[in-house]
Amino acid sequence: MPDTARAAAGPTPERRYGNRPTMKDVAARAGVGLKTVSRVVNGEAGVSPDTERRVQESITALGFRRNDSARILRKGRTASIGLVLEDLADPFYAPLSRAVEEVARAHGALLINGSSAEDPAREQELVLALCARRVDGLVIVPASGDHRYLEPEIAAGVATVFVDRPPGHIEADQVLADSFAGARDGVAHLIAHGHRRIGFIGDRPGIHTAHERQRGYLAAMEAAQLPVHDGWVAAGTTDPERVRADAERMLSGPDGVTAFFAGNNRVTVTLVRVLAELDRPVALVGFDDFELADLLVPPVTVVAQDPAQLGRTAAGLLFRRLEGANDPPRRMTHPTRLIARGSGELPPAT
Amino acid sequence: MPDTARAAAGPTPERRYGNRPTMKDVAARAGVGLKTVSRVVNGEAGVSPDTERRVQESITALGFRRNDSARILRKGRTASIGLVLEDLADPFYAPLSRAVEEVARAHGALLINGSSAEDPAREQELVLALCARRVDGLVIVPASGDHRYLEPEIAAGVATVFVDRPPGHIEADQVLADSFAGARDGVAHLIAHGHRRIGFIGDRPGIHTAHERQRGYLAAMEAAQLPVHDGWVAAGTTDPERVRADAERMLSGPDGVTAFFAGNNRVTVTLVRVLAELDRPVALVGFDDFELADLLVPPVTVVAQDPAQLGRTAAGLLFRRLEGANDPPRRMTHPTRLIARGSGELPPAT
Repeated sequence: MPDTARAAAGPTPERRYGNRPTMKDVAARAGVGLKTVSRVVNGEAGVSPDTERRVQESITALGFRRNDSARILRKGRTASIGLVLEDLADPFYAPLSRAVEEVARAHGALLINGSSAEDPAREQELVLALCARRVDGLVIVPASGDHRYLEPEIAAGVATVFVDRPPGHIEADQVLADSFAGARDGVAHLIAHGHRRIGFIGDRPGIHTAHERQRGYLAAMEAAQLPVHDGWVAAGTTDPERVRADAERMLSGPDGVTAFFAGNNRVTVTLVRVLAELDRPVALVGFDDFELADLLVPPVTVVAQDPAQLGRTAAGLLFRRLEGANDPPRRMTHPTRLIARGSGELPPAT
Repeated sequence: MPDTARAAAGPTPERRYGNRPTMKDVAARAGVGLKTVSRVVNGEAGVSPDTERRVQESITALGFRRNDSARILRKGRTASIGLVLEDLADPFYAPLSRAVEEVARAHGALLINGSSAEDPAREQELVLALCARRVDGLVIVPASGDHRYLEPEIAAGVATVFVDRPPGHIEADQVLADSFAGARDGVAHLIAHGHRRIGFIGDRPGIHTAHERQRGYLAAMEAAQLPVHDGWVAAGTTDPERVRADAERMLSGPDGVTAFFAGNNRVTVTLVRVLAELDRPVALVGFDDFELADLLVPPVTVVAQDPAQLGRTAAGLLFRRLEGANDPPRRMTHPTRLIARGSGELPPAT
């Protein structure tokens, strides 16, 4: 975190990661007993105004926040972590969520999820709502490109790990798949099977993974000294109508593409439908594996990432922080794997 | 709710559904001003012990709970509802979650999800954790068969709607698909296409929908006066190994089944794999539609429910309650729809 950003986050925290400050920390700093802190926090009588002010100053300095859930439950608080996804309906996130949940459970913690629906404002609202609801840590698939709003929370001890996409303008643990190399290798695979006119249909260009995969496509084309026509690269929502329109446009005319590289599983599934309607074979390699890809005709060649592994790694990093690890933020990149099944090995239609 | 259960839930609430009691309600009942209630709730000075006791009694009687998230955020509280699912990795729940989220958003509320992983203890832990985190209402796909643990929460004003499966031992709004009729019609469809030896592979029998669908299978067989051999009905986890073993057992021998009815989409997907490996056609009808079913060979005939509609209806009922509707709990049952695509119209192999 740059110093200016840290300054903007409010009072300098005495610890960045690790356990949140406890009442004991507040008591030590204020030079009072635990019972006194408890009285102040719970608004009970019997504390002098001077002492109360000292305790309040200590609370502010440490970023201490009372554990309200515990009081409501009147028993030990249930540890919980939050997971903020991009889209509940994208099957890519199902194994990722489940893996995070399994790690959380192994640590005796509950997992609470929410979806940003790819809306930065919604992401922020949801993240802060989860913090206000006292999650101990967060795993975030970011929709936003600026996470400085999280600095006060991180400073107050909310461990935070980003997965699938990096954070914006803050330093934090992050777990990514190698989107660039994966896409580059997938496109090189199509080129190796004789394709020269290859279309790329990706997700919205503001999304990190979409951008990286497009870069990978361009790198593979350049490495093979192949020209890329303007009409061969399309980025936008994964809405089936949009993908279909771009695909049909790229297929049309005498110089239509003979192969597609799809930027994610939502795009791939629509392309499978579009290509099934054609009277000529068109090759397809998709980023992301998906259920039943191997049973389609032809079976679909994919660049697979392992969303469960991404989730497990991210959750593992999170609990490492929650258990007190204090080393600088890490960036872990998982390789992808090309699975050749048939659709990516079709030769160019003559 | 039976009277005994209500008694066990603590002080009789003055309202069952509708908005939670507010500070204003507490003030009115205690015969004090709003500022006094605020002082008591926030532990501020300036309230006599007598008045404080009266306010506390009013708080207890009304089941009022302070909005702690609001204080933490230091701005208006974000309304939120919780959704407790059975399995994050089952694609059936993706459109259901998304529909609930869209309704929540239209009402200015956040959606927070959790998964019970089909574990009743986990469900209870998660539901109570969400209540402690001050959700305004809950949509629950229950794993548990006994929801009396929710009575104090419902009494305190947490609106609750069950979806996909009914609640156990409490009365509450519920939104179901017609599992019995759907399965009965799907099996009748196979019988109409000449099948006499039909296997049923379902989810665990303790699950309401699994039980209802098995009942539907048996009803269709009985209506056609067809015998059901012991080995033709298998219930258990949706683990692919289990489903595969049951399917292979039912297919073996001279009297092997010529068709399957699959109890849900997880079972169907495994059966598609098993049947793709056979050298003879075996008919298949599956409960639940699933992505790409129409592009498989043969395309898969399904009894479709509309999970988005289930979610929308459940969320609609929830916000109706949150807006004050006070009528008796409703049970809404949505019909299913048979979509004939090919696999369910195959004749029996000779």
